Order: sequence, then C-alpha cells, then structure tokens
Amino acid sequence: MINQPLLPHRFEIYEADSHAKTAAAIRDMIVRGAPALGQTAAYGMVQVYLEAERASGGRDQFIEEGYRLLRGTRPTAQNLFYCLDRVREAAEKHSPEKQAEAARAEAARMADEEAEACRLIGEVGVELIKSGATILTHCNAGWLACVDWGTALAPIYLAHRQGKRPHVFADETRPRLQGANLTAWELMQESVSVEIIPDNAAGLLMRMGKVDLVITGADRIAANGDVANKIGTYTKALAARAHGIPFYVAAPLSTFDACCRTGADIPIEERDRDEVLYAVGKSDSGQIERVRLAPEGAEARNPAFDITPGELVAGLITPAGIIEAESFAIEKLLAAEQIES
Amino acid sequence: MINQPLLPHRFEIYEADSHAKTAAAIRDMIVRGAPALGQTAAYGMVQVYLEAERASGGRDQFIEEGYRLLRGTRPTAQNLFYCLDRVREAAEKHSPEKQAEAARAEAARMADEEAEACRLIGEVGVELIKSGATILTHCNAGWLACVDWGTALAPIYLAHRQGKRPHVFADETRPRLQGANLTAWELMQESVSVEIIPDNAAGLLMRMGKVDLVITGADRIAANGDVANKIGTYTKALAARAHGIPFYVAAPLSTFDACCRTGADIPIEERDRDEVLYAVGKSDSGQIERVRLAPEGAEARNPAFDITPGELVAGLITPAGIIEAESFAIEKLLAAEQIES
Repeated sequence: MINQPLLPHRFEIYEADSHAKTAAAIRDMIVRGAPALGQTAAYGMVQVYLEAERASGGRDQFIEEGYRLLRGTRPTAQNLFYCLDRVREAAEKHSPEKQAEAARAEAARMADEEAEACRLIGEVGVELIKSGATILTHCNAGWLACVDWGTALAPIYLAHRQGKRPHVFADETRPRLQGANLTAWELMQESVSVEIIPDNAAGLLMRMGKVDLVITGADRIAANGDVANKIGTYTKALAARAHGIPFYVAAPLSTFDACCRTGADIPIEERDRDEVLYAVGKSDSGQIERVRLAPEGAEARNPAFDITPGELVAGLITPAGIIEAESFAIEKLLAAEQIES
Repeated sequence: MINQPLLPHRFEIYEADSHAKTAAAIRDMIVRGAPALGQTAAYGMVQVYLEAERASGGRDQFIEEGYRLLRGTRPTAQNLFYCLDRVREAAEKHSPEKQAEAARAEAARMADEEAEACRLIGEVGVELIKSGATILTHCNAGWLACVDWGTALAPIYLAHRQGKRPHVFADETRPRLQGANLTAWELMQESVSVEIIPDNAAGLLMRMGKVDLVITGADRIAANGDVANKIGTYTKALAARAHGIPFYVAAPLSTFDACCRTGADIPIEERDRDEVLYAVGKSDSGQIERVRLAPEGAEARNPAFDITPGELVAGLITPAGIIEAESFAIEKLLAAEQIES
C-alpha cells in the first residue's frame, strides 16, 4: 500500500507481509480513509487465513485473535467492520483447507465492488456540479482513501473529465493535515484546480459567496442519517447551512451502519495529543520532520471525528443515487441492496 | 517589545530603534494583537517626531511619510489608526520643538489608558464566568496582544484570581497558531488550566456540552456591531449559536470604528500563502524551523480575518460595561466616551 504519512513529500510503498503488520499499518495510519481501511482490513483477514494454515496452536483461536486484532485497530470507520465480517463469513462457508482461497476471492470481489461503487458515486454526484463550480471538501476522500476514484472526490474527477473545470478549496484538515498533504496532492496529480485553505477560512469564503457546494466523505453513517466524519466536518456543515450552501456527503453502502440508531451511538476516537502539539512536514533540508507548536508541558485534546446531524446534510451521494439523510430513505436503500445481493 | 514569533520556544526582546524598524516589526508581526499594535504604532509615531528633529529635507514631509509608513503596515486593526491619529493630533497642537515631547506624553497616556481599559474589561467580563466554567477562545487576546491584562483573557485572569478555577479551550488558530503558541503559553504563565484544541474540534466539544462560554477579542468593530477578528472566529460564532452557547467579544473603545457602517466596509487582509503551506515550530534538535505541509507548487488562500455579524454576538464586553452588538448601543457608548474626554 502507499505509505500515506510520507505524502506529499515522498512516494513509498509499504509492504505488510503479515496480518499483524497490516493491523499496525491501519492503526498507525499508513493507510487511512474509510473504504481503504476496509479493503486493507479485508486483505489482512485473508492473511489471517493464510497464516492459520501454518500456525502452531489452535487454528480457530488464531483466526479469532487475528480478527480481533484487525477489528480493534480503529473504532470509528464502519467499513472496517463491514469488510472484515464479509471476508470471514465468506471463508467460514468452506472447509478449513479452502478458507484462505475463499477469503482471497471475497476480498478481491469487494475491491472490484468498491471501485465500481466509487465510479457510480462519481456519476451520481457529477450532476450536482455546474460548470465552473467551486467545491469545498474536508480531509481526504479521494482515491487515496478508497480503492479507486474516491468518494467525495469522484464527482469532482468526473466533472473535470467532462470539461466542467471545477475548482476545489481543500481544507488543510488539522491536526493530521490530510487536506494539505493528500487532497491537494491527489487533485494536482489529476490537474484539477485546487487551493488549500486553513480550516478557519471556510466560513469567510462561504460568506463571500465563493463556495457553491460542499462534498465530504464519511467514516460511518447512522440509521437516521447522522454522519461521523473527520473532525471539523460538523462546523463546515453549520457554516454551509448558515449560507444556504448545499452540504453533501458521498459514501458507498459499506459506510452505512444500521446498528447505530443515531450519531450518538458512534464512538469517537480520541487520538494522541502529540498530533495537535506538533506538525509534520518537510524541512528546508528536505527531511520529513516534526516541529513542536505548543509550549513544553502543554495539554491538548484530539478527538479525531465529529458527528454532523442528518438535518444539515442536503443529500447522501451513494452508488444507488442521491438520497435524503434520514431513516426512511436509508432503510429503503439498504433493503434494496439486500434484495440485490 | 517581546519578539512574539519566537514564542513559546524562545523569549527575546526585539529592539526597534527607528520608526522604520517599528513599522517593520508591525508588518512582520513581531508584535500583534489589535491593542498592542496600536500602542506600538503610537510609539512609532513618537519616533517619527524625534527623528524629524534631525531629518534632512522637509520636516513636514518626513512626518507625513512616517505617518503613512506606519499606517500602511496592517489594514484591518482599528486601534492602529486610532492610536496613530491621537498621537499626531496631540503633537500638532504644539510648536515643532515641543512636538516630540507632546507625542511621547500622549503615547504614555494611551498606554496607561489601555492597561486600565483592559483591567476594566476583566471586571466587567468576570461576572459572566461561573465557578468551574469552561471558556473557548480563539487566537490570542491576552496581555501579549495588549499593554496589560488582555481583552478576551482579562475576565479569565480575574476569574482565576477570584478562585473560580476557569478552564480554557484554546483554538490553535491556524495558520499562525497564536492559540497554540501564545494563548497556551500566557495562560500557563498564570497557572490557568488550558487545553489546546485543533480549530476543527470546537463544534464537537460544543455539541458534547463541554463549552459554557466563548470569548474572543476583536480587530475592529463596525458601527452596527459586526466584528472583524482573526480568521475562524466567525465559524466558532456560528457553532456557538447552533448550541445556544453565548459568544462574547471583548474590546476597548479604540477597537470601535464608527466610520465603518457594517462589517462589509472593513478591509480583509490576505497574507502570504506560505503561512498556510508551512508550519513553524521547534524541531527535535531545538531549532525554530519551518516545515512544508503542502506539495511543491500547491496554491493556497490566506485571508487573515473574518467578519462575525453582530447578531451572533451575545454582547460586547467593554470597559464601560457589556453592551449589545448593535448600532444604538454602540452609538450611545461612543457618545458617552466623547463627552467624558
């Protein structure tokens, strides 16, 4: 996988040759983005089955422990749980000697599905983008966060290919700066016009009439349409509402969690405070370094996600169409999906 | 003056021995914070009169050029213009040989007035702070930004001295990080409990019920109560409104600009995009360094201030009491001041 913490300064492939290393890569955010996390976990589960064949001790226990290790890496992204469970269920239908192969086939099928889902999100969402529109996005929900295309960025890439010349404001997205590091880099790779803005600037730019549309991704969507996404998403949604700017969330079906009734049921990960006390970037000498921003001994809070209530969301851009962020529409969407599969 | 860009990592005094160096210190943000900018400009104007005594060429022209240089350093802070004009008007009442002395006396009088105004802001504002309250603040509006006490932080310092044990969430305030660098440092010097938060986290913390009150400073307040302040203030005000949390702005009278009818008349400074593309801090080797956050060639926007409409402001904490952020109350406040002076 691409070693994302080194971007945009260095492009390196990170090889995880065991499920333990894959779990570490997820936990340490070598890979991030809800769909990419899910897919990585899926292949991590394939590794569990492969390793189980040579494992000393109980096979079932090894598989259970591997599953738990992968599942415990990050608490918020729904895709992680969804993908792990799908691989495991597919494997468990077979006898032990065929499980690794079945797991691998299921993970590959999911990767194809995920890429296709994002392509469809692009097709559905591109209708919202008028020629010359300026779109604000938060964090990174592009192809780095997915198998291909991205979620929030998929409609933008398609609009660009259609010659609509979209312009993007990328929130830098402190503390981990996924906007400055990843979204700007991704869009520049695809020659999409992009300007990085401080997270603080979104309100002013909206007030000045410079933003036509907001599109973000999601880490988990509750049954009532509440959206868990990168910290700061919620304040952008409030600002968009104050200015009558439509705020959309793009997500594949694997992001929906019917078991969470509302956003209040979604656990919010609080990460290491050093992410707030430091910033990481490339020094003038070309090294990737961290610099301390805060006084020695300073305290900090670092919640990684927030909840945007469904009523602030103009619509959910899904592979199956744009739906309202409320219980009935989501129930219908997930029921249709179950009938199909 | 304290060399503020080196804080919190190094404490150094910056000496400006000419009005040109003082102007450079203002422009390069060695000193910042609306009241401190005003006071520094006032002493810069004293330097103009002192230097005019030895200047070759026309004395009047030298004074006019010095005035223009100081006035042109920063476009948003009202205190800068107010203080410059007061020193100049005081000096111009006298014959040339007495002007420098008159300017110095006026600047000293203003420094005393400013410190007293902030002390009074503390006394007025402390009534809003209940025992154990958590206050969110943005940027730095403490004693580093003023002559003494601060504006937004004055009520917090007084509450602390009264044993109310206030707790502060300090927005880190990208791009220049005045919250992480300065507000956290100031509050720690005074043993006030403080946690730095990413600018993105304010909405979630409000939604979780963790914020009782927001207090910020102001760079300029228009006749109708619209407030220009550090970029990001506006989104915090919108979030506070969404949660019914009172949002107060603390300012001395020198921050009010009756000539700006509304916030739309206040010019918004757009600063160097490198402030967004880089972060400055202390490296592991102890040097103050900048690290590049964004890809090479990336574009960025860097508006330094935004406008918070008066209707989002619960009240303006002034030395003369808390007033509503609307035309009639502000007119009355400024008229009372004129009668007194």
